[in-house]
Amino acid sequence: MFVIITYDIGHKRVGKVCKKMREYLDWTQNSVFEGEITVGALTKCIRELHEIMNNEEDSLYVYQINNPKHIKKTIHGQEKCPIDLFL
Amino acid sequence: MFVIITYDIGHKRVGKVCKKMREYLDWTQNSVFEGEITVGALTKCIRELHEIMNNEEDSLYVYQINNPKHIKKTIHGQEKCPIDLFL
Repeated sequence: MFVIITYDIGHKRVGKVCKKMREYLDWTQNSVFEGEITVGALTKCIRELHEIMNNEEDSLYVYQINNPKHIKKTIHGQEKCPIDLFL
Repeated sequence: MFVIITYDIGHKRVGKVCKKMREYLDWTQNSVFEGEITVGALTKCIRELHEIMNNEEDSLYVYQINNPKHIKKTIHGQEKCPIDLFL
């Protein structure tokens, strides 16, 4: 399964959230992770994220596409690379 | 067709980019627009965005899913609403 996770997390927690998501997916742009993942790994990832998140303030959307052939991604302008996450 | 657009735009241009995208799609979270759109409208939207963007600095990803049934969205924490775009 292919997933896109977009997030809007309080600045005190965003570092930990990114660190956790990097265990499972690829950072592709500010506020966006994506990649292939199993249902089990996604469930575990989300459970661990909930332990970090403040559900009253933070926002995290998970878009799941079962067949990667059903989604097409086009890049306009710059393609951000993981190192940008630390700049 | 359903699309998700994620963006990382220089602060001088992000306001104009958001204003333009609101003509076509729904703002759902910082750096994320989504919604149903025709191929023609998406082509026009992207062309107009390129007139605003600085391709050397800005980054914009367009995820296209032809059949909205092929994507499932789950929300964790807060669901941001369009008014948050102005806070």
